[in-house]
Amino acid sequence: MEDWNGIYDVVVIGSGFAGLAAAIEARRAGATVVVLEKMMAPGGNSAISDGGIAAAGTTLQKKAGYKDSPQLMYEDMMRAGLGLNYPELVREVAERSNEVFQWSIDYLGVEYMDRVDHFGGHSVHRCYTAADRTGTTIINRLVEKAREIGVEIRLGVSLQSFVLDADGSVMGVRVREGYDYRDPERGTNGSIKANRAVVLATGGFGSDVPFRAAQDPRLTEEIDTTNKLFSTAEALKEALRIGAAPVHLSHIQLGPWASPDEKGFGVGPVFSDYIVFLYGIVVDPATGKRFVNELSDRKTLSDALLEIGHPCVGIADSRAVEAQGWDLGRGLKKGVIRKFDRLEDLAAAYDIPLDEFQATIERYNGCVKDGVDREYGREVLPEASPIAQSPFFGMRLWPKVHFTMGGVQINVRAQVINLDQEPVEGLYAAGEVTGGVHGACRLGSCAITECLVFGRIAGLNAASVKGRE
Amino acid sequence: MEDWNGIYDVVVIGSGFAGLAAAIEARRAGATVVVLEKMMAPGGNSAISDGGIAAAGTTLQKKAGYKDSPQLMYEDMMRAGLGLNYPELVREVAERSNEVFQWSIDYLGVEYMDRVDHFGGHSVHRCYTAADRTGTTIINRLVEKAREIGVEIRLGVSLQSFVLDADGSVMGVRVREGYDYRDPERGTNGSIKANRAVVLATGGFGSDVPFRAAQDPRLTEEIDTTNKLFSTAEALKEALRIGAAPVHLSHIQLGPWASPDEKGFGVGPVFSDYIVFLYGIVVDPATGKRFVNELSDRKTLSDALLEIGHPCVGIADSRAVEAQGWDLGRGLKKGVIRKFDRLEDLAAAYDIPLDEFQATIERYNGCVKDGVDREYGREVLPEASPIAQSPFFGMRLWPKVHFTMGGVQINVRAQVINLDQEPVEGLYAAGEVTGGVHGACRLGSCAITECLVFGRIAGLNAASVKGRE
Repeated sequence: MEDWNGIYDVVVIGSGFAGLAAAIEARRAGATVVVLEKMMAPGGNSAISDGGIAAAGTTLQKKAGYKDSPQLMYEDMMRAGLGLNYPELVREVAERSNEVFQWSIDYLGVEYMDRVDHFGGHSVHRCYTAADRTGTTIINRLVEKAREIGVEIRLGVSLQSFVLDADGSVMGVRVREGYDYRDPERGTNGSIKANRAVVLATGGFGSDVPFRAAQDPRLTEEIDTTNKLFSTAEALKEALRIGAAPVHLSHIQLGPWASPDEKGFGVGPVFSDYIVFLYGIVVDPATGKRFVNELSDRKTLSDALLEIGHPCVGIADSRAVEAQGWDLGRGLKKGVIRKFDRLEDLAAAYDIPLDEFQATIERYNGCVKDGVDREYGREVLPEASPIAQSPFFGMRLWPKVHFTMGGVQINVRAQVINLDQEPVEGLYAAGEVTGGVHGACRLGSCAITECLVFGRIAGLNAASVKGRE
Repeated sequence: MEDWNGIYDVVVIGSGFAGLAAAIEARRAGATVVVLEKMMAPGGNSAISDGGIAAAGTTLQKKAGYKDSPQLMYEDMMRAGLGLNYPELVREVAERSNEVFQWSIDYLGVEYMDRVDHFGGHSVHRCYTAADRTGTTIINRLVEKAREIGVEIRLGVSLQSFVLDADGSVMGVRVREGYDYRDPERGTNGSIKANRAVVLATGGFGSDVPFRAAQDPRLTEEIDTTNKLFSTAEALKEALRIGAAPVHLSHIQLGPWASPDEKGFGVGPVFSDYIVFLYGIVVDPATGKRFVNELSDRKTLSDALLEIGHPCVGIADSRAVEAQGWDLGRGLKKGVIRKFDRLEDLAAAYDIPLDEFQATIERYNGCVKDGVDREYGREVLPEASPIAQSPFFGMRLWPKVHFTMGGVQINVRAQVINLDQEPVEGLYAAGEVTGGVHGACRLGSCAITECLVFGRIAGLNAASVKGRE
């Protein structure tokens, strides 16, 4: 018999978007709820999200005159996921996207910027951004609301393993209290019972080098991540150990817009993603040549960089920068983005062979004038101009691990599914720790939507499990 | 304590290429060896292989003047696998390819056709075919040799679960004897002890609809397979249940050359793969139009067909058929390939809108004349001719599951690796049940090479484990 240190109806592991949404719904359904967070602050990796959320059929869209539908959002997510997505999970996200977006405003009190954006891969304007452009604001509202309605949030408590009954149902968790991720041996062991169910919401494994490199051997410690250091796989591994089916683990999203000259997401992507990929070029410093359609999707660009095998250089001129109106100040100050009076200086700084580089610029400028990229088939946008106006800007590019599409299998009720395709009794999961929603590739801004949709579903269903008091 | 029905040094599960190669090497290293095969005949899915094997640096290549190297084969396999392959496993296969090919001739007595072929994806002539064009001949030689040197092969014995000792080492297997895959409840339970180690060589899961559809939801029962019906995941699932790390499970290779009008691999692919994709076109009968570069890789073609959502029609004229010299007799007799005097008749037979179809043929023939495919960028081969000479041939195309790239993780010693990236003591694996060698996509003819290379490594290392008699 397990010696329980605490007994709740629902035990939620992880305090990011999905975990907190689950806790709130479970509590509102009448359950006693604890959220266990291994770090000393709530929010997990969600706290460093950019606060972008996609939803179809919103008031903001209607106000701005954008036509959209859950069906269209479903199709966009399936296309991005290369058809590997679980259709029924995608449909759930798309159909409930407006509901959770509105819930975050009405129930949580999240404020969003008064704009609708059209981000890459979506076929319409459908993305909204939290007022201060960070996920922290959404986390803060979730934490406040959870505490207000009586959810207990325990920090520094890490999942060690699941406690199963004789039938294999999950009846609780073994934990380390006073956990310190820098010294995992610290703290004391304990056990917490879930009278109804456990909800796994521990996020992705982007920072877990051995685990991710087993799935994609290119992703060694040489590759940085935009995630927090604690985005690791230990809870996911415990779920697999009790027979949860792994889904899409080898589909790991890299950000090709990242700089090797700063840690994490950083300040460079505003230049690479919003200026270079649209109006500049990316050059291999070893050859001085382009090697890819710069407007390709994240996967194609990242794969092309990894294939080259060393950081490449994104280049744009001041006309492109001015036209876009983005402020590069922070990137320039940090030295991630660099400014040069002449292309010759840029070539020298990045050790690019000058003759080849000048020939590349000339060929590219010819393509812009003709309106067709004969080399790599990139769309020449109507507002594009040749790379000619001084000063010129450069930034080194090297992909970083951004999101892990794979995880445990769930069904539309957020029940974890085992290797024989049956539910694991007493175990629900939501968010990045699950696989199937995004298939081979996640469409931008759909992660928060997913976390809120399946977090709420998981919490509601966990609270409705027949008790074992 | 387990009640053992049999005790051997090495217990091999599965009697395909990998299992038999492992058994032979383990026996030659002095171990007592049993091979457990769930079916009533040895060979598994290997028996219906086409007997094609790739090897670099062979005598046949030298005789014919083809330059090749393990490095080049390594690079070809990595490129096909989109870089997801485990480099050290691929290197092992490439570097030992000539050794195992020669071993199959010298030690086993396999006879090959006196030719070296250049199949798709390889950068040189590197593929050999067993004299009677089937894997059965290689299986027969393996079985004879194994029995000759004292390997026991037990048929109708199915793995039920692994027996672990207190440390988690594999010390044997629970089995069902008198197993019948049509009625898995039949037979009697038993346990077999492995004093040194167990070798898992149970093949892929191409016929396991629930398991494969969890990894790729498009692969429902609507999609046929070229595999035998017994190519299922139950042994793989047992390995995952004891903590083996899953690798690349969602990378499942489909054959786009398959016909929905016959079961299995069939007789149609000689037309689609060797004639249509090179010199004909594939048309969506709903629109009468092409929709893909017909010379794309298997994955691109299969994905394009699945995206269309219904079988499409491969078309070539008699000039293309005659020039290639393949005999379509069996496909025509079976009705899988059909012959028409006029394109109008072909359009009517496959319910293709005639006007659009004729416009498509005209556009395509224009591309052939100009030597450039403006629509889909297919390479126009020098010997290509317009689709114009009666009779015309048609065949419906719909992808079938062909090979599962994923499986349990192994290292270069063929030890199974667990979720914490440590070896599972007492457990080795080889062949299609493992993941990592082929990455996202297997290069043709490399499966037999892999099975022989890692089968032999697994057998040798299993035999060298310190005994637990």
